[in-house]
Amino acid sequence: MGRPSTPLLSPELIAEAALGLVDRDGEFTVAQVAAALKVRPSSLYNHVAGKAQIVEAMRGLIFRDVPRVPSGADGDWVQQVRVLLRAYRDAFAAHPRLVPMLTSQTVSSPDVMRIYDDLARILTDHAIPGDRLLDVITVLDSFVIGSALDAVAPDQVWDAEHAQDPRLAQAIRAVGAGTRRADRSFELGLDLLLAGLTHLAD
Amino acid sequence: MGRPSTPLLSPELIAEAALGLVDRDGEFTVAQVAAALKVRPSSLYNHVAGKAQIVEAMRGLIFRDVPRVPSGADGDWVQQVRVLLRAYRDAFAAHPRLVPMLTSQTVSSPDVMRIYDDLARILTDHAIPGDRLLDVITVLDSFVIGSALDAVAPDQVWDAEHAQDPRLAQAIRAVGAGTRRADRSFELGLDLLLAGLTHLAD
Repeated sequence: MGRPSTPLLSPELIAEAALGLVDRDGEFTVAQVAAALKVRPSSLYNHVAGKAQIVEAMRGLIFRDVPRVPSGADGDWVQQVRVLLRAYRDAFAAHPRLVPMLTSQTVSSPDVMRIYDDLARILTDHAIPGDRLLDVITVLDSFVIGSALDAVAPDQVWDAEHAQDPRLAQAIRAVGAGTRRADRSFELGLDLLLAGLTHLAD
Repeated sequence: MGRPSTPLLSPELIAEAALGLVDRDGEFTVAQVAAALKVRPSSLYNHVAGKAQIVEAMRGLIFRDVPRVPSGADGDWVQQVRVLLRAYRDAFAAHPRLVPMLTSQTVSSPDVMRIYDDLARILTDHAIPGDRLLDVITVLDSFVIGSALDAVAPDQVWDAEHAQDPRLAQAIRAVGAGTRRADRSFELGLDLLLAGLTHLAD
């Protein structure tokens, strides 16, 4: 008779369990994660230092499929930034209730920092001045995060019945159901921001 | 001996209690709101139809101080949009955990729809074509929502220790503590988007 088998814990497995709780409840505790994994909380602490580290592991988990942009990659830089930001938005949009948790904690996940390394390299290589770099990254980040929440909003973001401006009411009604409303707005925002960055770089 | 005094319930009082729960827990139930107000859940249903209506009442509550922009108000339209969006961002930033709850439900609060009426009027009066109106409003909305979450992020949004690109590491370190980092990025984003809208209107 061997010892009872114990689940093979890892930071990634712990992050997956925590993500399930956040997706469902908007929150998690270490005790709940342990219960979900059928282990004692003390077992988790062999793999993660605490809640903040679990949040960073969740960050790494949801962004693991955002493609790297190799230095010297083909294509113009605006297109490279677009591809990166689209993947970034989609990753956030898959876990909207995780968003406030992620934005309230310093990004330290090495895997996620690679995304920002790529973005910083592309932007500085294309003449965004170093003293505007972090502001520019923050602007793109904020737009992506808001757009991710918009991507999972209802088709009707506003109720036309309560619009008093007839042009607003008409615009809301014209959107219709099932259109790619959020994608169209996201691409327009990228157009406006990236065109503006091209001017900033001049 | 009179009857025990009962709290004077109103949708606003109910929304305030729910907001306290969301700020603390990221979530609320009708039963918890009733408990917080020391009434039976059935008493709440005399004032609100259910959870969705409480969310709309919370939306009305947090945006009640966003100033109206009267038709024919002084100042250029870009400045009017800036003032409105700044107030809008600050209102979201005061309740970050409410953000995903608000973005996942159709906006019907009449008080909040007045903000979008103003925005729609300013934008269409200044040559934003009607068939782009809702996309433009969505772009501004998404940027404001992401910026609100950024406004309550830690001073150090990224950990310079984990940046591999030296220009990114330098930019992160240069931000320092206590600077108005988020405000500066928000204003840059407004610059870029509003300049782009001016071109869109041309």
